[in-house]
Amino acid sequence: MQSLRVELGAESHAAHVGAGLLDETGRLARKAGLGAGRVLVVTDANVARLFSARLVAALEASGFAPRVLEVAPGEPSKSLPTLELVYDALIEAELDRGGAVFALGGGVVGDLAGFAAATYMRGIALVQVPTTLVGQVDSALGGKTAINHPRAKNLVGAFYQPRLIVADVMTLASLPEREFREGLAEVIKYGAIMDAPMIEALEAHLEAILRREPAVLEEVVTRSLKHKAAVVLSDAHERGLRKILNFGHTVGHALEASSGYGTFLHGEAVAIGMVAASKLSQAFAELTPAEADRLQQLIARAGLPTALPAGWRGEEFVNALRMDKKRAGDEVEFVLLDRLGDALTRKLTFAEILAHLG
Amino acid sequence: MQSLRVELGAESHAAHVGAGLLDETGRLARKAGLGAGRVLVVTDANVARLFSARLVAALEASGFAPRVLEVAPGEPSKSLPTLELVYDALIEAELDRGGAVFALGGGVVGDLAGFAAATYMRGIALVQVPTTLVGQVDSALGGKTAINHPRAKNLVGAFYQPRLIVADVMTLASLPEREFREGLAEVIKYGAIMDAPMIEALEAHLEAILRREPAVLEEVVTRSLKHKAAVVLSDAHERGLRKILNFGHTVGHALEASSGYGTFLHGEAVAIGMVAASKLSQAFAELTPAEADRLQQLIARAGLPTALPAGWRGEEFVNALRMDKKRAGDEVEFVLLDRLGDALTRKLTFAEILAHLG
Repeated sequence: MQSLRVELGAESHAAHVGAGLLDETGRLARKAGLGAGRVLVVTDANVARLFSARLVAALEASGFAPRVLEVAPGEPSKSLPTLELVYDALIEAELDRGGAVFALGGGVVGDLAGFAAATYMRGIALVQVPTTLVGQVDSALGGKTAINHPRAKNLVGAFYQPRLIVADVMTLASLPEREFREGLAEVIKYGAIMDAPMIEALEAHLEAILRREPAVLEEVVTRSLKHKAAVVLSDAHERGLRKILNFGHTVGHALEASSGYGTFLHGEAVAIGMVAASKLSQAFAELTPAEADRLQQLIARAGLPTALPAGWRGEEFVNALRMDKKRAGDEVEFVLLDRLGDALTRKLTFAEILAHLG
Repeated sequence: MQSLRVELGAESHAAHVGAGLLDETGRLARKAGLGAGRVLVVTDANVARLFSARLVAALEASGFAPRVLEVAPGEPSKSLPTLELVYDALIEAELDRGGAVFALGGGVVGDLAGFAAATYMRGIALVQVPTTLVGQVDSALGGKTAINHPRAKNLVGAFYQPRLIVADVMTLASLPEREFREGLAEVIKYGAIMDAPMIEALEAHLEAILRREPAVLEEVVTRSLKHKAAVVLSDAHERGLRKILNFGHTVGHALEASSGYGTFLHGEAVAIGMVAASKLSQAFAELTPAEADRLQQLIARAGLPTALPAGWRGEEFVNALRMDKKRAGDEVEFVLLDRLGDALTRKLTFAEILAHLG
């Protein structure tokens, strides 16, 4: 097990990464200061089948009285109607302000359960137990919680830090290939924006990663979380540096929204977005064609898509781009690379973006 | 105009109290650092008729581009369906992260619009423009935002500080008598829990207050806000001292919930709750019968109810009490008085509460 401290003042908390940690979650939660009592585990039906009994047993062994709410798997559960189901379950379970929500699953469950915890009785304790690579390397850390609106992704949400993160890399063994690979998009992103040696390491060890060797995964997840923690520490409310974490996400989000949630996995859209951002980085920053090519090759080797789908110039994509949360007037703050490992943000007009994407 | 600074670290902000300030809101908002641009005014139909044109004119004169959303007046608008209407209006108005919500109205509008601002794009600027006495002396300050759930009041919400509070005491002139008087319950509360001389001042000047003389109102509102600011400063997330602000509220909330929202105005329920808490304060703290009587007399002179309604021992009231947010297990943290101007909290069981209410 590797542990790191996410330093956020009064909201500081630990993150633990290792093989088999699911069975330690109760103990780790008590160690983090949570009181024994009623808690709600929010998970999805797929994850529940694999892991919910083990988490419940671990919680009970440490004095918690857990109930489990299963939501439907997939992005549509990040919705107001599903959020209402979570509130209802919290009331049914009679959770008071001393209660806690355990988010067992991927980014969808983490965002949904996190937003419910942030807003139930104006905030109760939240423990993130991510079971996907995306969740473990990215979404569980940083306090971003949200649900979607039919008109835009993550439109309704809150910044709300978990009290603890428990990332059991063994849970990644059962992840469908496509979902595992999407997580690699976020891993590659950390290398691209802030850790050039990590790009080298990923190039060297990609086969072991794709075989999901636990020791390698523990290393990859921990290194990713450390990068994310460093950025979040400097900027918990996403006003400055944290924006570089959105590398690949402006185009990625627009792709997801315009192609209907579910066509692309989030990481696949981000992969395409990173390649698109590399093109823009050659026009508006100092990235060389050779470096852009190297990044694209790594993304492709990880089994991720790199090209915008046919028809991306359509109205839906452009409109989705205009709804971007980082928009200010007719410009969007776009994350670019000066070189691998070195990101910056720059305001680009929609015309500039569209002219250089294709 | 009297101004005070609500000290909350990075979330510090000003509150201005005076006659005619509605027309100054744009200027004061720019002075508080808000950028000109798209903003949404959330108000209810009654308030809109009286004040929305003036606020819009004031905002436009200072470079804002306001749109107005009117919701139905009354507590039922603190609901998920109405919250969705606010989100829709924010999207329609194309507000980005640089936008702002102006909450023009009473506690319902402030809570609803505040929660929308807290959660739209994970938080945009909020300006509270309270037009009721309850709003001006209490709910606009402190960052508590929420909507109701069919099963419990304020069950879903967030702590989210406004960027500015503008309290125009002239708006109180048009308030229906019953709504004006309910605000006095909160004013009396500040005296009861932390300012014995204020009780004397209220006893001495109650007639001028009831005539709504602007200079007296400016004084009463400012003194109340200073008390609330002092408490909030010491405890922004309601973990300790801030709980004393709930004097009268445990029974009050249960009354509101069990008699159907709308039977009692919030301040009326709190008035009854304060008298009930005075009874409990004689049993479980050091309040004397004479002091309890003096408080009850002032509440009655303000035209507020003091007695629990017939049938309060019914199942609805007891169940509502058990859903209280300040509950921990089978006890509730109850605010009591040792004497007028001196409050404390104590854990009481439901049995203890029920035995001493009647």
